[in-house]
Amino acid sequence: MSEFVNVAVDAMGGDNAPGEVVKGAIEAIQESNKIKVFLVGQKHVIEGELAKYGLSGNDSSTGQSGNGQERQVEIVDASQVIETAEPPVAAIRSKKDSSIVKGMKLVKEGTCDAFVSAGSTGAVLVGGQVLVGRIKGVERPPLAPVIPTANGCALLIDCGANVDARASHLVQFAKMGSIYMEHVMGVKNPKVGIVNIGAEEEKGNALVKETFPLLKECSDIHFIGSVEARDIPAGAADVVVCEAFVGNVILKMYEGVGGILIEKVKAGMMTTLRSKIGALLVKPALKKTLKAFDLEQYGGAPLLGLNGLVVKTHGSSKSVEVKNSILQCIAFQEQKINDKIKEQITRKEEV
Amino acid sequence: MSEFVNVAVDAMGGDNAPGEVVKGAIEAIQESNKIKVFLVGQKHVIEGELAKYGLSGNDSSTGQSGNGQERQVEIVDASQVIETAEPPVAAIRSKKDSSIVKGMKLVKEGTCDAFVSAGSTGAVLVGGQVLVGRIKGVERPPLAPVIPTANGCALLIDCGANVDARASHLVQFAKMGSIYMEHVMGVKNPKVGIVNIGAEEEKGNALVKETFPLLKECSDIHFIGSVEARDIPAGAADVVVCEAFVGNVILKMYEGVGGILIEKVKAGMMTTLRSKIGALLVKPALKKTLKAFDLEQYGGAPLLGLNGLVVKTHGSSKSVEVKNSILQCIAFQEQKINDKIKEQITRKEEV
Repeated sequence: MSEFVNVAVDAMGGDNAPGEVVKGAIEAIQESNKIKVFLVGQKHVIEGELAKYGLSGNDSSTGQSGNGQERQVEIVDASQVIETAEPPVAAIRSKKDSSIVKGMKLVKEGTCDAFVSAGSTGAVLVGGQVLVGRIKGVERPPLAPVIPTANGCALLIDCGANVDARASHLVQFAKMGSIYMEHVMGVKNPKVGIVNIGAEEEKGNALVKETFPLLKECSDIHFIGSVEARDIPAGAADVVVCEAFVGNVILKMYEGVGGILIEKVKAGMMTTLRSKIGALLVKPALKKTLKAFDLEQYGGAPLLGLNGLVVKTHGSSKSVEVKNSILQCIAFQEQKINDKIKEQITRKEEV
Repeated sequence: MSEFVNVAVDAMGGDNAPGEVVKGAIEAIQESNKIKVFLVGQKHVIEGELAKYGLSGNDSSTGQSGNGQERQVEIVDASQVIETAEPPVAAIRSKKDSSIVKGMKLVKEGTCDAFVSAGSTGAVLVGGQVLVGRIKGVERPPLAPVIPTANGCALLIDCGANVDARASHLVQFAKMGSIYMEHVMGVKNPKVGIVNIGAEEEKGNALVKETFPLLKECSDIHFIGSVEARDIPAGAADVVVCEAFVGNVILKMYEGVGGILIEKVKAGMMTTLRSKIGALLVKPALKKTLKAFDLEQYGGAPLLGLNGLVVKTHGSSKSVEVKNSILQCIAFQEQKINDKIKEQITRKEEV
C-alpha cells in the first residue's frame, strides 16, 4: 500500500485549466503531506505550469531534486482533451488518450485512489460508470454536491447522474449519502429527508410515494420524512434525497435565485447617495457572511458508489476549489467510505 | 349580462381572514368600479368587518344606503370553514356549506365570474375541478403562479395541481400559460420554455424528451426550447412549463433561498459597528429593490382551464395581495381568456 493517498487530477478540465488546476494541486500538497497528485494532461503544458512553482513533475525516485514536494507530484501524459460540448459517450469511447479517460484508468487499475476533474460533467459521469465501474450491488452511482444551508451544509443526492430513477435507487442514495455526510463531512447521525411537495406522508408523486415507506424501514439511516424545497436552504435535512432531475433543479435554483438576489442587493445599494455611502460601510462584513452561502466554496461533488472515488468540481473552479476537492479525498480514503458502502449495500441485499 | 365583473371572495380563507380579506375586497372596489365582490362566509363575522368601512353588505337594490359602494359588495352566508390541514376531497364532499364550496358554486351557476381564495390549496384545486369543472378539451387545469424575475415576471405552470403529468398536459399548459401572459399580464408574444437539466434538445427525463418535439410543433406559441432552472430567475422565459412536482420545487426554492439570503444579508450588516451604521443608510433603498423580488407582490395564482376563473392567493396574504387577486379578474374577463383557451384547445383537437 502506498504511503500516500494518490489522486489523479484532470489538468486539462474546466474553464481555468491548466493554470488554476495545477495551482490547486500544488496548494493541496503544500497543505498536506498525505497526498500525491498525478497531473493528467499534455506533458509540456503541465511542465510549464509546474515550473512556476520550481517543480519538474519527474518522479523523485529517479530524479535528483532537492525539493521535497517533488515526491508528491507526477505527470501522466495524455494528448487529448474532451471538450464540455462533446457528446459524453462518444467522447469517452473515441478519446482513449484524453485526460479524463487516462485519469479514470489510473483509478480503475489501482494506481490512484481518486480522480478529480473540473471538465465535462457528462464525460465524468459516463467515464465513472464505464471505466471505473460500480461497486457490486450499487445500482446507480449518484452525483452528490454539498450545498450551503443556514447553519452549515447538506448533501444533495442525486444531482445529475440518473434521470428517471426508481425507488430502489433512491434508497441506495440515502444510505450512501448518509455514510458520506457522517464520515467525510463529520455530521453525526445525519438527518435524511426526501424532497416532497408537502410534509405529509400521503403527498408526492408516484416515485416519492413508493420510496417513502422503503426509507422508513431502513434501520441504518436517520430518516426524518419529507422535506419541502422551501426548507432545504434552512437546513431541514443533512442528506437531501431526490431523483436527478429534481436535484438539478434545486442546485440550479440555488445559483439562479442567489445570483439575482445579490445583484438586486448591489443595485439597491447604488440607488441613492445615502445608500452608496452605506454600501461602503457594509461591504466587508457582508462579503464575509455571503461567502458562507457560496456554492463554490464547498469544492467537489463526489460520484458515489464506484470502485474508487471520482470527484466532479465546478467547471469554473479556481485553485481553492481544486485544492479542497483533492483534500476531501483524504477523509474518503482514511474513513474507508467504499468499504462502508459495500457493507451496507450488501447487508441490505441479504435481508 | 351583469354590469360588473362579479368576484366571489372566500372571506374565511387564509391566515389573516377575515380581516385582511375583507379589507382587500373593499380596497378592490375602491380602486375599480368594474368589480362587485361577493363575500362568502359567516354572515355575522363579515358584517362586523364591513361595519369598519361603513358598509352593510346588504344588496343596494333593496336597501336605502346612500353609500355608492354598497352596490359593489354583497354577503353570501356560509356557515362552515375548511381548514388547511383537512384532506381536500373529504372536505369538499362533506362541507357543503363552507365558503369554498359555496364560492365555487357561485361560479359554476354563473352568478360570479371568478372565485378568489387564500384558503386550503388542496381544497381549492379539488373544488375547482369537481365543482367549477374543466373547459371541454382541457385535460388537467394547471395552477400557475406569477414569479418575479430580474426584469419583470414569469408564469410558472404547473405548480401543484397535477403530479405525474403527461406530455399532452404540458402542451396544454404551454398554450394556456401563453394566452394568460399575453392577455392578462400584457407580455407580447411571450417566450415559452420547458424546464430542463441542460439546454440541448436531447437532454432531459422521459417526460421532457417526449414533450419537447410536441412543443416545437405548436404554431400558436413562441417556443424557445429548454430553460435551465438557473436561468429562470434571470427571466429566460415568460412562460415556464414543467410538471407540478418540479414547479413546486422551483416555487419553494424561490422562497427558501430568498429567505435565507435576506437573513444572511441582515446578519452580515449587524456584525460590526461600521456595518451597522452602513445598514441604516442602505436600508430604505434596499427595501425598495428587494420588494420587486418578493413572491407575494404578485397576488394570486390562477387555476386555468376551468369554466370560470379560480384564483388561489398565498395563505399569508395581506389585503394588498387579496386586492390584486380580485383586480386581475377584470383583465381575465375583459380579455375573454376562457374563450381564447377554448378556441386554441379545440383547434388543436381538430387537427
